Amino acid sequence: MEVQGKGLNPQSQITNHESPMMKALYFDGKLTLREVPVPNRAPGEALIKIMLAGICGTDREILKGYSDFRGIPGHEFVGRVVECDDPRWVGRRVVGEINLSCGHCSWCDKGLGRHCPQRAVLGIVNHPGVFAEYVTLPDANLHEVPHEVTDREATFTEPLAAACEILEQLPLNSGTRVAIIGDGRLGLLISQVLKQAAAEVTLVGRHSWKLDLARAWGVKVLTEVSEELTPASFPVVVDATGSPLGFREALRLVEPCGTVVMKSTFHGAAQFDATKLVVDEITLLGSRCGVFAPALKLLQQGQVNIQPLITRIFPLEQGLEAFELLDRTSVLKVLLEMPEDS
Amino acid sequence: MEVQGKGLNPQSQITNHESPMMKALYFDGKLTLREVPVPNRAPGEALIKIMLAGICGTDREILKGYSDFRGIPGHEFVGRVVECDDPRWVGRRVVGEINLSCGHCSWCDKGLGRHCPQRAVLGIVNHPGVFAEYVTLPDANLHEVPHEVTDREATFTEPLAAACEILEQLPLNSGTRVAIIGDGRLGLLISQVLKQAAAEVTLVGRHSWKLDLARAWGVKVLTEVSEELTPASFPVVVDATGSPLGFREALRLVEPCGTVVMKSTFHGAAQFDATKLVVDEITLLGSRCGVFAPALKLLQQGQVNIQPLITRIFPLEQGLEAFELLDRTSVLKVLLEMPEDS
Repeated sequence: MEVQGKGLNPQSQITNHESPMMKALYFDGKLTLREVPVPNRAPGEALIKIMLAGICGTDREILKGYSDFRGIPGHEFVGRVVECDDPRWVGRRVVGEINLSCGHCSWCDKGLGRHCPQRAVLGIVNHPGVFAEYVTLPDANLHEVPHEVTDREATFTEPLAAACEILEQLPLNSGTRVAIIGDGRLGLLISQVLKQAAAEVTLVGRHSWKLDLARAWGVKVLTEVSEELTPASFPVVVDATGSPLGFREALRLVEPCGTVVMKSTFHGAAQFDATKLVVDEITLLGSRCGVFAPALKLLQQGQVNIQPLITRIFPLEQGLEAFELLDRTSVLKVLLEMPEDS
Repeated sequence: MEVQGKGLNPQSQITNHESPMMKALYFDGKLTLREVPVPNRAPGEALIKIMLAGICGTDREILKGYSDFRGIPGHEFVGRVVECDDPRWVGRRVVGEINLSCGHCSWCDKGLGRHCPQRAVLGIVNHPGVFAEYVTLPDANLHEVPHEVTDREATFTEPLAAACEILEQLPLNSGTRVAIIGDGRLGLLISQVLKQAAAEVTLVGRHSWKLDLARAWGVKVLTEVSEELTPASFPVVVDATGSPLGFREALRLVEPCGTVVMKSTFHGAAQFDATKLVVDEITLLGSRCGVFAPALKLLQQGQVNIQPLITRIFPLEQGLEAFELLDRTSVLKVLLEMPEDS
């Protein structure tokens, strides 16, 4: 993937004499802070000035080789539109769906552009991401952020949508007992979303300070070594650990005829006991991105608590330190703040 | 597991002086033909004289160590009731569901006795199987065989019920494109059942003579190396290969948002690309036994063709040869015929 130079003038794709530069984190086998050209805005795309971006587990997997991505990573953000074919977008505060679909295949026709086989994915597959001062995205991917939602909250729209996706795939009856394995950022978001949906949520984790957060929201919490975690004891188990071990534990905890929701993308293969899956007639449900509307609504209505999930905010220039902190410790969400003027 | 001696007289559990003997295949790390006592009939159970029994892939996995079973294997059969508390059963021709549930746990209460955690399973877990002259089963497990159904057809009730179970778990719309991987006994049965349900079935296999059978039933067939088998090309894929390789191929063939039905039980672990499952939001559906009623109905109405699936019938005394034939070749169903008089 190459980031090509362009001017901020929409016409500059042809007259590409000036190349305004911007700061960005760039991965080419190693992550570095660089000066790179501001990305080209293709027709139908907006150029967005990033304000805040969130570092996700997938970004860290990319640094380990996931998806063979080269370029600017990052896909969780809030920004402001600075250029666009449609002038109504200019100046608006936006978040953006991460799948850039072709728009004319059978998947796109079905409204499932996020599974379009030709798609690019913001900061993950063939499209420069948001750990930079500017990014481009199709207008169709943008959502205006309601004024009730703060910038910090808005950066959680994408992972919150991924949490909401579980309910799209698996409607839960009120009172359904759900175990969520993993007390990280995603596990804590999912706990809140499923509790909102009136499920009886148990969060299983290893960090008492993270479990304390969930307990304060009224979620039952158990440490991963709890004796209450007996085999085959939950009809629904969500694996949000990002590790093959979490998947194995989910399979252990799920009841016969139950469902394991897999939210973890990790680099490499998982091993599992196929016989248990067949004999107990378990359903395994792969679950990835969700649509943004339900997530923005939850944020607008103040139904999820984001602030305690933010451990620290680094300026973009200290982005490498942010990744080091994530490698070294078990912090929650780390955000990157972009310089106000480029 | 021990096979205990008993008389054919229902009272003989107390006065167990005579122990009528019977021939059986017995597995204790090695499969042998033995004379063993006729099994005890507990209250609520029927004693059944076996007429024909079918050898299933699971039986062969047991010989490799699956489920740590010791005793008489075998769970596909047709027989005649010779003793029973309820005299109305005596003399009837029956088949029997294979899960012996406790009858009073929450699973049994829900009608899901086949997932009862205390259950025994005929010839698989803690209950002597049908590669013998006699077997015991609870009356509740028995189904009378309709007169239109031959003995040979009746021995297919259990695997046919396993095929029908797919439709219980995953209602298919008319015209849904389904790939079934594996042209063995189960794959050929599933092909017929799903075609009956108006799915557009493609059977993928490696044996031209087996694929020819399916073709004669109007099923589209492809060899496993066909170029038509492009990645992500079927919304539903059934793995009926009994091998980890089949599962991997199923995951390759399934479309985003599609479903892989796993019908294979094999001894050991399966490896898979968890990221594909998550990113493509695949559903993996473990599927095992089914209830017998729909299967008996299909047989009664002549809607499945069983005869070409029977490769050979051995007398029980030649049971070891039957297993050797299955090890050596890629035959279809092999049946064991019991002696008429014990």
